[in-house]
Amino acid sequence: MKIRTTVVCLPVRDIDKTLAFYQNALGFSDAQVEEGMITLELPNLSLFLMEKSAFETYTKKVGRNAQFPDNNVGVVISCAMETREEVDTILESVPEHGGTTPAKAAMDEMSGGYIGYFTDPDGHLWELVYPRQ
Amino acid sequence: MKIRTTVVCLPVRDIDKTLAFYQNALGFSDAQVEEGMITLELPNLSLFLMEKSAFETYTKKVGRNAQFPDNNVGVVISCAMETREEVDTILESVPEHGGTTPAKAAMDEMSGGYIGYFTDPDGHLWELVYPRQ
Repeated sequence: MKIRTTVVCLPVRDIDKTLAFYQNALGFSDAQVEEGMITLELPNLSLFLMEKSAFETYTKKVGRNAQFPDNNVGVVISCAMETREEVDTILESVPEHGGTTPAKAAMDEMSGGYIGYFTDPDGHLWELVYPRQ
Repeated sequence: MKIRTTVVCLPVRDIDKTLAFYQNALGFSDAQVEEGMITLELPNLSLFLMEKSAFETYTKKVGRNAQFPDNNVGVVISCAMETREEVDTILESVPEHGGTTPAKAAMDEMSGGYIGYFTDPDGHLWELVYPRQ
């Protein structure tokens, strides 16, 4: 499969709320909304957060609508972080900007890493890992 | 947000069926199952396809189960391809290996690209784009 580049697209309900979350809780201060989507360039991931209607211009072509996380989770975005403090700082900042931190960050006995989780305003689940050094 | 690297994880129901699909329909001939997951390295995307139970070792930590695409779609993986023929070749190969091609590939009037879609055996949606040159 000769691919030139790859992008992952997720639907969001309220693009302005999402923008404020990613800017303020996660520090993507340059992020902006263009054509109904927010483009985030992460290490080894181009992530497009798309208004429901923008996302559905893709999915309608195959007769489908956007599916949002409910109590369950369809995708996990897992990030290896530079420092353990970075995990804590983000998790502290998330709740005041519209996300949730459903569990406290903790050492993972199996991997030896320090792991925390948060969801964004739409329930998309992120894992933050500070790997065992 | 100081991230070292990023991985995207999706749940799959039958890992052997998924392996056969990605090997035979998409040409990832070296792919294999390790610890309940298939690791695919794509340009600008590390994609982990994980058995439901492996995926849920993550999500259970926050009290959630795996959510699969139903008639709707939670994530689109969009790939820019090297050639137009590559789009056609993959779409031809998908149905005989357990995926679906819900629409014929076609020129997109807005972008000028040639675009096709397929789903893998779990309904995860891929978009293949040969961009306007």
